Amino acid sequence: MNNHATTGTSSYHRPKLSNEGLPPTHSVDAVDEYGLSRKLRVAGEFPLTIKVDGAEIVTLMSLGTFPEKLTLGYLRNQRLISEIGEIAEVRVDWQREVACVRTTHGHGIDDLEKKTASSFDTPYEVLLPQVKIKQSQVYSLLENIAGYNQIYREAGAVHGCALCKGQEILYFIEDIGRHNATDAIAGEMWLEGVKGDDKWLYTTGRLTSEIVMKVASMGIPVLLSRSGITSMGLELAEHLGLTLIARAKGHHFLVYSGKDNLIYDEIPKRRRETATTKS
Amino acid sequence: MNNHATTGTSSYHRPKLSNEGLPPTHSVDAVDEYGLSRKLRVAGEFPLTIKVDGAEIVTLMSLGTFPEKLTLGYLRNQRLISEIGEIAEVRVDWQREVACVRTTHGHGIDDLEKKTASSFDTPYEVLLPQVKIKQSQVYSLLENIAGYNQIYREAGAVHGCALCKGQEILYFIEDIGRHNATDAIAGEMWLEGVKGDDKWLYTTGRLTSEIVMKVASMGIPVLLSRSGITSMGLELAEHLGLTLIARAKGHHFLVYSGKDNLIYDEIPKRRRETATTKS
Repeated sequence: MNNHATTGTSSYHRPKLSNEGLPPTHSVDAVDEYGLSRKLRVAGEFPLTIKVDGAEIVTLMSLGTFPEKLTLGYLRNQRLISEIGEIAEVRVDWQREVACVRTTHGHGIDDLEKKTASSFDTPYEVLLPQVKIKQSQVYSLLENIAGYNQIYREAGAVHGCALCKGQEILYFIEDIGRHNATDAIAGEMWLEGVKGDDKWLYTTGRLTSEIVMKVASMGIPVLLSRSGITSMGLELAEHLGLTLIARAKGHHFLVYSGKDNLIYDEIPKRRRETATTKS
Repeated sequence: MNNHATTGTSSYHRPKLSNEGLPPTHSVDAVDEYGLSRKLRVAGEFPLTIKVDGAEIVTLMSLGTFPEKLTLGYLRNQRLISEIGEIAEVRVDWQREVACVRTTHGHGIDDLEKKTASSFDTPYEVLLPQVKIKQSQVYSLLENIAGYNQIYREAGAVHGCALCKGQEILYFIEDIGRHNATDAIAGEMWLEGVKGDDKWLYTTGRLTSEIVMKVASMGIPVLLSRSGITSMGLELAEHLGLTLIARAKGHHFLVYSGKDNLIYDEIPKRRRETATTKS
């Protein structure tokens, strides 16, 4: 229904990618409180060192299901590479636990040390559009999300992130870190030329400064979470004009930033007087 | 009852510490699903840059309640400084968002770059003692823990870590990152000369490789979590001889590593056939 993606027909040369996604869960044996042996699934966790033209950038601990997209999104969200056209290839090798990025120009990342040091700075140059959000769409999205978190239901220990256009879920990615899942979505958006300005990002994780900065860097004006927020996540969102909705679960939510953007078109009938649940 | 701590009477010169702990939660306004304004508490999140003799080591995002202990524990767990006697002073200045560490010798950390690069390496040199764990003690501990997570109950968005001797809780620290809470406990242990070999560490967070490595570095042989585990957390624990108990909540738990160390002295009467809950 929604023409959500500018498909990859734009002018840049699409990077060559390996296809080294790992299975997300692994079978292990545990013993329960009755002393009984149980065969269970656990989430994978693997180190992946990103190298650009041979220079080591970072080691991420990841589920490993979308390592090429994670690599692309990390480079984009940390603002280490500004144009995807600069990237000729991403080749993941799990034997060596490395994602080798080759640029078209071959001279790596300029001012790497400076860029790495400044990754905690606020992207104040980002100006996000103010978009209206219907309560009914938030509720529809939360219903839709329920069908997606397969890895979590199988093994736990992961966070899920979804790129949404209103209630419609475009991509859903799980990882052991919510920041990795967000980066992998950024990588997919970058590859496909998808813009963030008419999208929302949903996460099961908490809204800390890191996730707020990543989502703002992705140009996405609305961030929803099943969990809570921190003071700095809120402060940054207010600065950047990001609408922040936390504790979104069932019919409950709390709007912490961008309060004027909510359209209350489906106010629940029974007013609950119970306290906010934590997570 | 238990003489759990070698108190700070040992021969080293105790470092001079500032006392700059911040209040953990802050009042903010949010709007709920009824369009009603609500005054709520959120957890603090503040950047703290650790400097040793003027050289920048890392920037941590923290709740800020125990910044001096966090600084000490980070340096110890990352094996950047091996003896607390080398540290003359830790002075935290929130205006400058910095924790200034002054060493007794004044020449900073040797081989800083090498040590930072190797922080993902496994501490295979650690050999943990194999200690027996009574199921009844696990249950008593889980009951005791319930009274401690004050910040979580007020504002959510934090993880709690406890240093325990059996069911007795010696220290309980909450932070926005489970790794920070663990580091702050390591700092307190270092300051007080407390050994890990007869202790347990409990965390509300997931058992990933990072937390397993920290706990092993602290010499603690038993790690319990309310949440799940990852494949690498388990693999490392098996290598290091760390007993790993996950999904510990109420009367339920799962022993993933060190299965022979459990003494089943309080097997629940009614055997539940329900599936393991995730978190």
